[in-house]
Amino acid sequence: MDKKVFGVDIGGTTVKIGAFTADGEVLDKWEIPTRTENNGADILPDIARSIKDKMGEDGTTVDNVLGIGISVPGPVDDDGIVHKCVNLGWGVFDIKEEMKKHIDVPVFAGNDANAAALGEAWKGGGKGCRNVVVVTLGTGVGGGIIVNGKVLSGYIGAGGEIGHIHIDDNETEKCGCGNKGCLEQYASATGIARLASRRLEEDDTPSTLRSAAGLNAKVIFDAAKAGDALANEVTHRFGEILGKGLSIVADVTNPEVFVIGGGVSKAGQMVLDLIRDSYVRYVFHASRDTGFVLATLGNDAGIYGSAKLVIDGVTKA
Amino acid sequence: MDKKVFGVDIGGTTVKIGAFTADGEVLDKWEIPTRTENNGADILPDIARSIKDKMGEDGTTVDNVLGIGISVPGPVDDDGIVHKCVNLGWGVFDIKEEMKKHIDVPVFAGNDANAAALGEAWKGGGKGCRNVVVVTLGTGVGGGIIVNGKVLSGYIGAGGEIGHIHIDDNETEKCGCGNKGCLEQYASATGIARLASRRLEEDDTPSTLRSAAGLNAKVIFDAAKAGDALANEVTHRFGEILGKGLSIVADVTNPEVFVIGGGVSKAGQMVLDLIRDSYVRYVFHASRDTGFVLATLGNDAGIYGSAKLVIDGVTKA
Repeated sequence: MDKKVFGVDIGGTTVKIGAFTADGEVLDKWEIPTRTENNGADILPDIARSIKDKMGEDGTTVDNVLGIGISVPGPVDDDGIVHKCVNLGWGVFDIKEEMKKHIDVPVFAGNDANAAALGEAWKGGGKGCRNVVVVTLGTGVGGGIIVNGKVLSGYIGAGGEIGHIHIDDNETEKCGCGNKGCLEQYASATGIARLASRRLEEDDTPSTLRSAAGLNAKVIFDAAKAGDALANEVTHRFGEILGKGLSIVADVTNPEVFVIGGGVSKAGQMVLDLIRDSYVRYVFHASRDTGFVLATLGNDAGIYGSAKLVIDGVTKA
Repeated sequence: MDKKVFGVDIGGTTVKIGAFTADGEVLDKWEIPTRTENNGADILPDIARSIKDKMGEDGTTVDNVLGIGISVPGPVDDDGIVHKCVNLGWGVFDIKEEMKKHIDVPVFAGNDANAAALGEAWKGGGKGCRNVVVVTLGTGVGGGIIVNGKVLSGYIGAGGEIGHIHIDDNETEKCGCGNKGCLEQYASATGIARLASRRLEEDDTPSTLRSAAGLNAKVIFDAAKAGDALANEVTHRFGEILGKGLSIVADVTNPEVFVIGGGVSKAGQMVLDLIRDSYVRYVFHASRDTGFVLATLGNDAGIYGSAKLVIDGVTKA
């Protein structure tokens, strides 16, 4: 029997689990609830039990498991020490050692945003590329930078915080991080809505957005696609700022491709075009041909990336 | 006899060569001229002969040489293929294979700016740190990013081009790269002189800089240290822009320390303080404690980095 790899993505309400071949083909995937009571003491035992149940179904033994990769919504260092996960009630502990008490296979762990980026770089939009920047445009702007196939975590795991690069000197409102003028304030789903609100308040230019039930990224991009001039202005401002920001990321890291995911990316090719038009005007010439593609794994990116942590970890050991 | 490593740094007029222990202690260093005639056909044979002569002095044999690392003033890919060095007259060729025709030891090669950064990270200002950003403030602004002890070269070797990150939307003059508003236009030696010229032209504020024989970084920093208000304003503008730029580099790569070198850094601690004051105002909180230190290896950084290429290469193989 070929060895199996399990990829686990722990979220605040649901744990996603995938069974993969050692080549990264998904065999099965399922979810269990995240039980955060008792400071999250049941989470790892629940995961171990669920994986063992699944192994029992086809007679997989621990000898046939290459390992389990776990992505965690908080900082995890290279030794597998979790440094608090507020959402799960977790403090500081060695997740590898703790997990091995429940199932005796090799365990690898990483931060969830980085694992998702690794997944997209490996089997998603960045498939086949070893230098990839994954940008997630959701409530905030998240990032994951893959250098030679590995996550760039940096000194204390704060690498890839591209949502908080300073992009506008004239901003008057504070970002959630406390600074002013962060990329996230313009390029996240909430950032685009904020750009639209501001623009609507500026003057009386007619726009279908004025009668929209709610201002969100989808409404704004749909209006722009339908020819609304003000919405078009807003989406161009979004592209201008994000393209400028990503030009800096490319000057620093020179990826082969940017993979754009998250809710905002559902507007599709239009988002890529808006970003790239701005990007090429700002980037150093050596990085001018960098590709822009959409993320393809959606919410499964985390289980793919967690499985990859196992494969890389086992190969290295 | 302990094995020796040779680090070679090829410049346009001089080749620097160092003999090192496998631990990176320098045993000897010397220079030979760079003969660029005949499309640089003599450069590698000259280097091989010079190293063999040095080996003859103490009876070192090829078996006692761990390898030769060569840094080149142009792009070199991970396979050791040089992609043109205009200054040397070189076209595209395999420098490892070519060098081995002249001396039969393992050969490793890299770009000179990256090798110098690797040297500073290894034995210079960044000694003991595995995640380091080296910034060279010379005629231009160069950079080298070390992630987990290795150079971040990126997809086509254009990583670490921090001199060309876009930093000012209002710039009217073009940078040498063709873009407008690059970091290098403000933070290089020529950039600071340009900031001073601009400021002097703005109004009639008295300043000792008005009677200076020439406006250069040293004159400007010395005037600021001596209490000249206008020079002080200029150095603060330099620090403001560079600190902002490096905050973005840190948000992306989260280094443990920034190592600041090049001619401008000769103004010393004042330069670090000016950068850091601005840096902490812009950077994401997780990277707020990143250190700032001066480079220590000067022109020897390249030979150290070239030696490190050998040590890493041999260890990996």
